Amino acid sequence: MKFGGTSVADLERIRNAAAKVKREVDRGYDVTVVVSAMAGETNKFVEFVHDAACPPGSNGSGLYDAREYDAVVAAGEQVTSGLMALVLQQMDVPARSWMGWQVPIMTTGAHGSARIVDIPTDNLAKKFGEGLHAVVAGFQGIGPDGRISTLGRGGSDTSAVALAAALGAERCDIYTDVDGVYTTDPRIERRARKLDKIAYEEMLELASLGAKVLQTRSVELAMRYKVRLQVLSSFDDKPGTLVCDEEEIVEQNVVSGIAHSRDEAKLTLVKVPDRPGVAAAIFGPLADAGVNVDMIVQNIGADGMTDMTFSTVTDQVAKARAALEAARGEIRYHDLVIDDEVCKISIVGIGMRSHAGVAQRMFSALAQEGINIKVITTSEIKVSVLIDRKYMELAVQTLHKTFGLEGD
Amino acid sequence: MKFGGTSVADLERIRNAAAKVKREVDRGYDVTVVVSAMAGETNKFVEFVHDAACPPGSNGSGLYDAREYDAVVAAGEQVTSGLMALVLQQMDVPARSWMGWQVPIMTTGAHGSARIVDIPTDNLAKKFGEGLHAVVAGFQGIGPDGRISTLGRGGSDTSAVALAAALGAERCDIYTDVDGVYTTDPRIERRARKLDKIAYEEMLELASLGAKVLQTRSVELAMRYKVRLQVLSSFDDKPGTLVCDEEEIVEQNVVSGIAHSRDEAKLTLVKVPDRPGVAAAIFGPLADAGVNVDMIVQNIGADGMTDMTFSTVTDQVAKARAALEAARGEIRYHDLVIDDEVCKISIVGIGMRSHAGVAQRMFSALAQEGINIKVITTSEIKVSVLIDRKYMELAVQTLHKTFGLEGD
Repeated sequence: MKFGGTSVADLERIRNAAAKVKREVDRGYDVTVVVSAMAGETNKFVEFVHDAACPPGSNGSGLYDAREYDAVVAAGEQVTSGLMALVLQQMDVPARSWMGWQVPIMTTGAHGSARIVDIPTDNLAKKFGEGLHAVVAGFQGIGPDGRISTLGRGGSDTSAVALAAALGAERCDIYTDVDGVYTTDPRIERRARKLDKIAYEEMLELASLGAKVLQTRSVELAMRYKVRLQVLSSFDDKPGTLVCDEEEIVEQNVVSGIAHSRDEAKLTLVKVPDRPGVAAAIFGPLADAGVNVDMIVQNIGADGMTDMTFSTVTDQVAKARAALEAARGEIRYHDLVIDDEVCKISIVGIGMRSHAGVAQRMFSALAQEGINIKVITTSEIKVSVLIDRKYMELAVQTLHKTFGLEGD
Repeated sequence: MKFGGTSVADLERIRNAAAKVKREVDRGYDVTVVVSAMAGETNKFVEFVHDAACPPGSNGSGLYDAREYDAVVAAGEQVTSGLMALVLQQMDVPARSWMGWQVPIMTTGAHGSARIVDIPTDNLAKKFGEGLHAVVAGFQGIGPDGRISTLGRGGSDTSAVALAAALGAERCDIYTDVDGVYTTDPRIERRARKLDKIAYEEMLELASLGAKVLQTRSVELAMRYKVRLQVLSSFDDKPGTLVCDEEEIVEQNVVSGIAHSRDEAKLTLVKVPDRPGVAAAIFGPLADAGVNVDMIVQNIGADGMTDMTFSTVTDQVAKARAALEAARGEIRYHDLVIDDEVCKISIVGIGMRSHAGVAQRMFSALAQEGINIKVITTSEIKVSVLIDRKYMELAVQTLHKTFGLEGD
């Protein structure tokens, strides 16, 4: 059972979370609890580190020793794990805290963004044998240098899934501030329905499309180790959404969900001489400038010229423009056309694999509403389109209805 | 070099402390820095623990698992040690943080008030060899159970002295918010003089008499391992007071300092039948009630009756009275007379050992000012008296002059 920062933001909430743990213990489970830092604590520590490494008025580089960053910020989860153990004890649930180095959660030496390498469970298992439930500090481990490591932002989800895999847990419950995964954003479509189950692959597509319910890495890990992952709310008692193997999902919809990303931009390099290496000449400088390119479409003209279109988030347009203008002599494009008034709409569903014509149904439905599609990309279980931003709500609502996703 | 909570209360102060470290490094020293938690952090964590173990409205016992208390509160020093290492690095001083379990500072298993058992210094020494100065989280260690332990309040001084002893350090500098040890409280006697040196034994008497400069345990440890201990201010650059072996003090005063304790109370049990076991009958119930008894005087009368007088701090008078009244049938005293308008004045000096008549000079000086002495106790290097509280300032000033302690 993993509780995020808002679920352990103060002692009242820690008690609320502990009551959920007690309920599972009373059902006969050996429970491992994974906790984040109390909401706000990690940010405070990160600010401390930046201030320490780069004092006001200094011309410091802003670089700092990631090993010390890890030592400082890991203190947040340390505090919560001790407090959760105390609250559980107060509720007559035998429990003890475990820091990353005590379990041990063995990680790579990439301080600040370490990856979990191994979790020997002998220590935990021995204490389970004594009836002691475990409260593990999330987000942290121990590196090969014997020092505290952290997994990067959102790493507590990863800690929880990795522990569930290592322990062979029946389930990994991620308690958060939403009560599950919905067919689409309920703020846009009020008939959005909470899914009982969703396949790992679908969740991965939805996670990377901006449904900020679960961290992508934790879903990948769950998929690899077949950890059944439940997303549910800390603040009510309803069942959540189970993220699981597709074989466990009996009534599979063709499309499980509609995702959207509001602030997208489309950049087109017009009339680029089409020659080998042109893509590298364009996307090399963009990568060097730190621009995250999402969709890429290339149209080859009859005149030996090509138009190259790609999308990114609006925040990165200025950076992209500067990088492309600096590389203009190399790329030799005729013009750069930027449309920063677009959004991305995606339909996601495992069922697409076995159902033809899903993309076509999407395009028809949008066309009937007079919505023009600007760019299309597809994967095995996803179709994404760029459209004008002003049609975003209409597109989501139309597709939600088209694919029969409404609730009661 | 040890920096207390007020000396590392924010990043500005940590930078100020780090500049002092850099100065010693530039002088060619291998420096081990010991840091406390930022002022206020430990109290915050202690409150969290109490709230966790005994929620509002519960009828909890207030008892909690000291191992979890240790895990929670040790986070404070963890944060400061990482920040101090980062600030030192920013000043081009190669440094790294060490948690108690990393050094390791091995302690007993008495969580919450552990004692240091051993500090293997191989790890630290190896890093010194690589030019890395050490920043050690104070107040914490690792118990035989492999869990984080803490040394109890003020334990960072003890961490510093123990590390200095283990490392064979030339000196242990305790940076605090006072600039040294004074002949008496400068708020009472403006001619109080900062001592250049003071013997361990004297410091111990002064520490336990309420001069809150150094924790008693750390002085005992320094005395045992002959660690030269300097007390000095974080906030200026003047030399402080060296606490050292008496042999190192060439010009030894007969009396080194005058201590006072304002809020004392004198309790007298009048006409107690004098029989074997009467002291136990009196002080047993007081100890059970948690009353700290300081001075004890017994006067035996001619009639087989004795008067038993003792002192305690005024805060504990109510508790003492209740305990004695409950035990009245057992003790069979005639009356309980309480004077809670007294204070304690002590003169402390190694030189008393070899100089007769020191106590007599004290009594005469007080008598000349018309100050009546109510209780006297003496040790080899100390004479303490209880007097009316209204004479406290006069007594301190008189004795300060009598024993030639004035500065310029």
